[in-house]
Amino acid sequence: MKKYLMAPGPSQIPEQVLLEMAKPIIHHRTKEFEAVLEKVKKQLQFVFQTKNDVLLHASVGSGAMESSVVNFFSKGDKVIVVRSGKFGERWSEQAKIYGLEVINLDVEWGNSVDINDVKKLLEKEKNVKGIFTQICETSTGVHHDVKALGELIKKHPQTLMLVDGITAIGVSNIKTDDWGLDVVISGSQKAFMLPPGLSMMSVSTKALKFAEQSTLPKYYFNVLKELEMLAKNQTHFTPAISLIQGLSVSLDMIFEEGLENVFDRHEKLAQATREGVKALGLKLFAQNPSNSITAVYAPQGIDGEKIVEHMFKKYGFTIIGGQDHVKGKIFRLGHMGYCSIFDVVSMLKALEFTLKDLGYKKEN
Amino acid sequence: MKKYLMAPGPSQIPEQVLLEMAKPIIHHRTKEFEAVLEKVKKQLQFVFQTKNDVLLHASVGSGAMESSVVNFFSKGDKVIVVRSGKFGERWSEQAKIYGLEVINLDVEWGNSVDINDVKKLLEKEKNVKGIFTQICETSTGVHHDVKALGELIKKHPQTLMLVDGITAIGVSNIKTDDWGLDVVISGSQKAFMLPPGLSMMSVSTKALKFAEQSTLPKYYFNVLKELEMLAKNQTHFTPAISLIQGLSVSLDMIFEEGLENVFDRHEKLAQATREGVKALGLKLFAQNPSNSITAVYAPQGIDGEKIVEHMFKKYGFTIIGGQDHVKGKIFRLGHMGYCSIFDVVSMLKALEFTLKDLGYKKEN
Repeated sequence: MKKYLMAPGPSQIPEQVLLEMAKPIIHHRTKEFEAVLEKVKKQLQFVFQTKNDVLLHASVGSGAMESSVVNFFSKGDKVIVVRSGKFGERWSEQAKIYGLEVINLDVEWGNSVDINDVKKLLEKEKNVKGIFTQICETSTGVHHDVKALGELIKKHPQTLMLVDGITAIGVSNIKTDDWGLDVVISGSQKAFMLPPGLSMMSVSTKALKFAEQSTLPKYYFNVLKELEMLAKNQTHFTPAISLIQGLSVSLDMIFEEGLENVFDRHEKLAQATREGVKALGLKLFAQNPSNSITAVYAPQGIDGEKIVEHMFKKYGFTIIGGQDHVKGKIFRLGHMGYCSIFDVVSMLKALEFTLKDLGYKKEN
Repeated sequence: MKKYLMAPGPSQIPEQVLLEMAKPIIHHRTKEFEAVLEKVKKQLQFVFQTKNDVLLHASVGSGAMESSVVNFFSKGDKVIVVRSGKFGERWSEQAKIYGLEVINLDVEWGNSVDINDVKKLLEKEKNVKGIFTQICETSTGVHHDVKALGELIKKHPQTLMLVDGITAIGVSNIKTDDWGLDVVISGSQKAFMLPPGLSMMSVSTKALKFAEQSTLPKYYFNVLKELEMLAKNQTHFTPAISLIQGLSVSLDMIFEEGLENVFDRHEKLAQATREGVKALGLKLFAQNPSNSITAVYAPQGIDGEKIVEHMFKKYGFTIIGGQDHVKGKIFRLGHMGYCSIFDVVSMLKALEFTLKDLGYKKEN
């Protein structure tokens, strides 16, 4: 059966990227590879909308999340973590394990963080060294207003703004420098249209000063060392060579389409998905939905997991269910990266067929 | 120009592995991927010669090295690190950064560790919790006798034997369980014939007990959590999906050839390389050379870096120079993984041409 990957990541990989990675591998300590890294480095700055360097780790996104904890803080530092889903929980756990004093700002799954709650916390708590939040919380499909957050934190010279843009960079218009986002991380298997295994991180000059003061132990994830090597178009350790070569091609595709057009396409794909789902009589899970993922309530009496299973078995579409306490209650549709309106049309049609097969009747 | 990759890793990737990884990606939270992981898991046990599980990290080998430090020890634990080259130095640095009390057993670059020195250290130092050593030290091409070391440490129930088999597993006959090697790590881009970005680790039951006592902070590299997930044919985080799919094919190739035949081939390739190099009048750098890499002294008056550069520019062969204080003094030839006797013949001929071009005359 023909297969369609419409998950919240990994997402589809363009044929030209797959073929680039299928070329004979080159060694990383060569002029040839340095040239690739230099090109990719410049293109990433453009996509991240920053004049600062964007470093690469040979890890999935959770590694970059850990890197953002251990590189900018010291034991006992007080940080606020927005916990609006599974990935907020992960960041909170990581920060706790490394000995930070974590204040969780809990947001109900499906909701976005209220900027006033952050303001109040900052007034109440003294000496907050960092605020962590997802841009898009992949477990709920929620988009958080990091522009407002960034502009708030700009006024706090002792506080860093750290954002997880794993399912947002290359999807939504995120102005890293303009908005004062000090640390922005992303991963290869979402809008960058690659397999998982490569993570990225932009670091502001404000964050660099924090890094110089940080005393937490670090070695594999060492931001200052990676930036020092990146200046020479190298990496500290053996890099994920094939993914970086693939990234060079996927970045060219983004450039060819034009970054504004890429954002515009994702917005249209998300709108079409939301409208299509609503037209089927279903309800969206996220209050302020992202443009990368659409989380949808399973209709009454139908298990969300069944929808996911049936849609794969009968129609070849990989979509993903809910995690933890929303498992079975929601399902998640991905529409980022190498995705066109016809992918969305097909996915919605397969969803319609699936629901019909499972006995769903739209209420009027 | 036709290119030939004969480096100490990354090594050549078979066409069928490249093509497997060029297939459309699958999602990791699916039965399809779980089946791949289950198969790979069993095959890895066979290659590592262990009945214990071999877990996977989405990182290069240095990540697995870090994992072996943070998962089995606690702050202040005393460990011995064999420092016989750059990778021994790396392990020593990692252990120090995470607060272990590190006793460096320094071995001159090019030499193998003397088992009597380890015995003496163990008698002198009380309460040594672990011994770290490379099997093959990639920076020098030296092979260490981990069989003797493992059998020594077997008699020390309070001490773990941790070995870096990044350039040894799948090359040499390493009997993990029989020899009492508690933690054995490896990486994808050497004998496993894949791009870099995936690391492996076998963990003995003795090591598991250490892991349960360990209090060092860990999250991305959490051995107990990964083993718990692996039992369900899953990984804690998004795995390096495409590399694991490629690994499935490269492991099939190893099985098809037969593990003993693979070891035998590597031994012959190494012997041919050593004899060929000596026939050119050159001197080997390693006292006890490994079967994966041959390190060679550059002849008097010729810069090793020039040999590396010329061999690439004029003949298309990627070989690699020396690191740190042996930079310019040695060069390193790789002959592991997807490598046949004709690769070695070609490499030796290209080396002969290169030396001639650079004005080298063999002394009689």
